[in-house]
Amino acid sequence: MKIIGEKINGTRKTVKQAVLDRDVAFIQKLAAAQADAGAAWIDVNAGTPTEREPDDLVWLVQTVQTAVTKPLCLDSANSAAITAALPEVKQAPLINSISGERARLTGVLPLAAQAQGGVIALAMDDKGIPADVEGRLTIVQRLIGETRGAGIPDEQVYVDPLVMTIGASGNAARAALATVRAVKAEYPKVHFTSGLSNVSYGLPVRTLINRAFLTLMLEAGLDSAILDPLDRELRKALLAAEATLGIDRHCLNYTRAYRAGLLE
Amino acid sequence: MKIIGEKINGTRKTVKQAVLDRDVAFIQKLAAAQADAGAAWIDVNAGTPTEREPDDLVWLVQTVQTAVTKPLCLDSANSAAITAALPEVKQAPLINSISGERARLTGVLPLAAQAQGGVIALAMDDKGIPADVEGRLTIVQRLIGETRGAGIPDEQVYVDPLVMTIGASGNAARAALATVRAVKAEYPKVHFTSGLSNVSYGLPVRTLINRAFLTLMLEAGLDSAILDPLDRELRKALLAAEATLGIDRHCLNYTRAYRAGLLE
Repeated sequence: MKIIGEKINGTRKTVKQAVLDRDVAFIQKLAAAQADAGAAWIDVNAGTPTEREPDDLVWLVQTVQTAVTKPLCLDSANSAAITAALPEVKQAPLINSISGERARLTGVLPLAAQAQGGVIALAMDDKGIPADVEGRLTIVQRLIGETRGAGIPDEQVYVDPLVMTIGASGNAARAALATVRAVKAEYPKVHFTSGLSNVSYGLPVRTLINRAFLTLMLEAGLDSAILDPLDRELRKALLAAEATLGIDRHCLNYTRAYRAGLLE
Repeated sequence: MKIIGEKINGTRKTVKQAVLDRDVAFIQKLAAAQADAGAAWIDVNAGTPTEREPDDLVWLVQTVQTAVTKPLCLDSANSAAITAALPEVKQAPLINSISGERARLTGVLPLAAQAQGGVIALAMDDKGIPADVEGRLTIVQRLIGETRGAGIPDEQVYVDPLVMTIGASGNAARAALATVRAVKAEYPKVHFTSGLSNVSYGLPVRTLINRAFLTLMLEAGLDSAILDPLDRELRKALLAAEATLGIDRHCLNYTRAYRAGLLE
């Protein structure tokens, strides 16, 4: 399971302030901590108004790259921001994200094809997120038609089935699991990712639900996730799930983490 | 998910000593604590030599029933012990267990049919536990042929797919999951149970692996489990998994547990 470190996100107040203040040390610290904790990509989301987002994203990209050598995940629906950021990246970045929303697709897809580092494809369109698996699968089918048409190989597509909160529907998590299984059966080379914390929105002790959902999604086929790599309990649950499912061969990572004191 | 409280088991040193000493208070306390923690059945396993096991199991049954009103799970491969215990039970007990082992089947099956409280059927035979799903399914098919022949309805059969430790094989947990799914597809009325802690045998911080496995088994169809209901972290994981999977409707049990301070 590859982790997309989610912490540098301008929807978080402290991060937004750091972006506005050009607080290099704050951002570098967040980037380094996530890389040390095992993030494979560092997500960068400026979260600032459209007109200044290109400048802010460029600054974020430059700043993060002074702290870590990990590839970035450019997190924006603003094609001007991604266009500005792309020349600055030192490694092919993941683009977060395209969806069946027409504007997003036409704006971001060509940039994802150009970036060659992969693209997250959300199972939603202009009408929103279908509650059922069939609706999401239909959107994903159309999206993969588009990515193939743009020359992006399936191996560079990361489908996010989009989980809704179980607080609103008892079927929310199962719909996401079933979407992963259905897409995987049809497109065996595609990858999967999930901004999994939505599953627990509105519920108490959210990390318990997030851990259960991560474990279940791993079995369904999830091979990357957008999460907080500094959440120790979530990482413990992930290590245990990978060992349990034989993804962690001979439980090597699990026993290594134990010896490093990370399972306490 | 119904819990079979596993703690009154003579393979545990302190329990065996309590049985030998006829330590009523020790056994009553273990029984009451498990019932309070939500066990649906209290497993009783004397774990003493064959010739004295009938007397010991009768004493255990009588002693536990002075402490709790839950039905018992008579845990023995010794038909003489089960025969002696059956007239003592106040509610129809679960019988733990039959398997494809010839002696066990012929000895215990008629008693399970007589007890009418359900029987645990282990996916193994005289040749041991098949590593593959097909081998286990074949045994379960034969066992369900036998239980039906003995007049036991499928609703009273609790199939245990028998998980082996992931420390020995990376496929161990997946084989158990796949066995549950295969049996469920063929026998939709059958129940499932699992002595799940075997999955982590030989590994450090076993409870982390047990939690992951319980979560995954729940999704596969497990509806009961032999476990320690006093393991707070395992119960938290179970509550979270049931909420995540919509088994806990409207997350009522989860939020109730939260308000009772059980999720801390």
